[in-house]
Amino acid sequence: MKIGIMGFGVVGSGIGEIIANSPDGLEKRSGEVIEIAKILDLRDFPDSQFKCFTKEFNDILEDEEIGIVAEVMGGTEPAYTFTKKLLMAGKSVVSSNKELVAKHGTELLQIAKENNVSYLFEASVGGGIPIIRPLYSSLSANELTDVYGILNGTTNYILTQMIKEGESFEAALKGAQEKGYAEKDPTADVEGHDTCRKTAILASLAFGTYVNSEEIQTEGITKITLEDVAYAEEIGGVIKLLGMASKEDDGVYARVCPAILKKENPLAGIDGVFNGIMVKGEGIGDVMFYGRGAGSLPTASAVVSDIIDAVKHQGSHIGLGWKEGVPGYLKDAGEQEFAFYIRMSGQPDVKVEGMRVITLPELADEFAVITPKLNGKAAADLLDDLKQNHEILGTIRLVAE
Amino acid sequence: MKIGIMGFGVVGSGIGEIIANSPDGLEKRSGEVIEIAKILDLRDFPDSQFKCFTKEFNDILEDEEIGIVAEVMGGTEPAYTFTKKLLMAGKSVVSSNKELVAKHGTELLQIAKENNVSYLFEASVGGGIPIIRPLYSSLSANELTDVYGILNGTTNYILTQMIKEGESFEAALKGAQEKGYAEKDPTADVEGHDTCRKTAILASLAFGTYVNSEEIQTEGITKITLEDVAYAEEIGGVIKLLGMASKEDDGVYARVCPAILKKENPLAGIDGVFNGIMVKGEGIGDVMFYGRGAGSLPTASAVVSDIIDAVKHQGSHIGLGWKEGVPGYLKDAGEQEFAFYIRMSGQPDVKVEGMRVITLPELADEFAVITPKLNGKAAADLLDDLKQNHEILGTIRLVAE
Repeated sequence: MKIGIMGFGVVGSGIGEIIANSPDGLEKRSGEVIEIAKILDLRDFPDSQFKCFTKEFNDILEDEEIGIVAEVMGGTEPAYTFTKKLLMAGKSVVSSNKELVAKHGTELLQIAKENNVSYLFEASVGGGIPIIRPLYSSLSANELTDVYGILNGTTNYILTQMIKEGESFEAALKGAQEKGYAEKDPTADVEGHDTCRKTAILASLAFGTYVNSEEIQTEGITKITLEDVAYAEEIGGVIKLLGMASKEDDGVYARVCPAILKKENPLAGIDGVFNGIMVKGEGIGDVMFYGRGAGSLPTASAVVSDIIDAVKHQGSHIGLGWKEGVPGYLKDAGEQEFAFYIRMSGQPDVKVEGMRVITLPELADEFAVITPKLNGKAAADLLDDLKQNHEILGTIRLVAE
Repeated sequence: MKIGIMGFGVVGSGIGEIIANSPDGLEKRSGEVIEIAKILDLRDFPDSQFKCFTKEFNDILEDEEIGIVAEVMGGTEPAYTFTKKLLMAGKSVVSSNKELVAKHGTELLQIAKENNVSYLFEASVGGGIPIIRPLYSSLSANELTDVYGILNGTTNYILTQMIKEGESFEAALKGAQEKGYAEKDPTADVEGHDTCRKTAILASLAFGTYVNSEEIQTEGITKITLEDVAYAEEIGGVIKLLGMASKEDDGVYARVCPAILKKENPLAGIDGVFNGIMVKGEGIGDVMFYGRGAGSLPTASAVVSDIIDAVKHQGSHIGLGWKEGVPGYLKDAGEQEFAFYIRMSGQPDVKVEGMRVITLPELADEFAVITPKLNGKAAADLLDDLKQNHEILGTIRLVAE
């Protein structure tokens, strides 16, 4: 089986490495010799072991021997146009491109089905962690109710440094950039956009209907301070950036936000660049998947496992997918009830039924409270009320389990 | 698609419940209506919602409309004979029977292949945790190097009660029996046999060659005391029963034994009846799977996911499997080097290079040591040496990571 690779960056070169280094293993597992026939990239790689580079997409599209193409370019264009053309030409496409899957997945899956080929994207969520395939096969006996987790290694590394090393957000971000865990422009990670796209893909697959990532309420970690970390610690919790989706009757709730997790929660112990994804279903209870959520080889491994799957299913369509979204299916996130952590200036004179007050000896002239479970409207009203006498210094949702 | 169920115990009735309760969901996911046509059990179930019970195996074997049979009887006979006949009659078999898979899996997989049907056993390891399918599909791009974990919920519950509640082994076992987590005869669990069978299945699948469970060095948890728990705590560790297998050149090492895990290890935080399975590969790094390792609905969910997979692959063989074992493939467990925890009577007068001595104020007239890494021979020699002046009260391997 001849394959093409589009994009020879971190993931693309990892794919090349895996295929070049273990041809026997891959042949044993897929039943065929897998050969890289063309690599599309606008850059030159004179020192690469591969000699099949091209700058012309049509060289791949028109090569009839190529049956499977790995799209690891990132971004929506030209990846979208290329993927569409390849599927319509009867080639399977495997992808690590969460942006494209989150935006155009419904259409691309439909085109794959019509052309009796496959569109696979195990690498789009959780790097090397197998999560996409279990969601549509191993867990298929279950009506799933929740899928949530730590989906972004960069932000989890930053939060871990804040919690374990006492570094400020700015210092931890700088460290992450120096280590290559964060990009020069870290917006997509720290503002939660990356987590949001992954959440949309997981929700679409787990519950069977498309969720548009652009409609998911998303909050990043840029406002989290070391004071918040200290208050969370005081109540036995840690702050994590979560992507969350849950099924409720005929719709889903989805959101991305920092949350305080109690230390008993299995996700609370997931530190550094690791990801953890929790899936709940009526039969299985809680199942968690843990591993490296990013990096060249883990992500490339996931792409190669999709290539092997596509080889095994030549001439047929691997039926993962979801229905088109309908208006109202993604419910108003404000309806969901959470306990809130609210940090504010002044003295702890607040008296609300069921509200817990936390003070820290090292932080005079301020305090924090944990509210009872409130929906968005009630939380906003409470904040308005508190603002009469206090300056609000921070709020975080509390995931009590 | 009509299916048969053999065995209407805890798992069998769970399968019935799942299929009866969500026919639409299963049809959506498998593409066909799944109908339970016959249930084989020697007992009577007059109050069951199902009216298709039979006491005759041939009623299932000779029913040409039945394409898939769930074997959830347990034990090797008659399950082995029945499974063989069903596969040879062109029916796919899905199983939760780890004893049968560990003992006759190689032959049954071969028969399935020859008859172009499937033999699937996601439920044999880890209950509702998807682990079998990821090992042969999602992780297939990787040369796997290690697979190990907490594979038995009963023993993990007992150890957790000892660690967290200070219960003795006997009291914790009694509590587990009262809660239905342990059987009246707990031998298979507490002596490690159940973990051993699961370890053999994981090793066979992960490394592609059959490992005979009967040849795996196996030690249970019956000798673990609260004193051992206290010494482990003193060095920042917890005691867990592990099944472990690792690839080394042309063979594998496998063993089942209690081990002290440092608290940083993700498996250390897995408590109660939960299971956790760690898979290491060259590309992916560490991936962990976590969830309920037993119970009616989790295990039944795994069986039903195999049924759905078999429905989707009608008329073809799902190619999971392994090669037959060869002499010497399973290496001498004594060659592997571990640090050991040794607890002994007397005063801490031991002086060996690199050996750490631990004393606990509440335990006078005894102490423990942590040795450097030793192979089996060196450990035995050291024990002989120590026995000159001390009574050995306990030994546990130490997994330092």
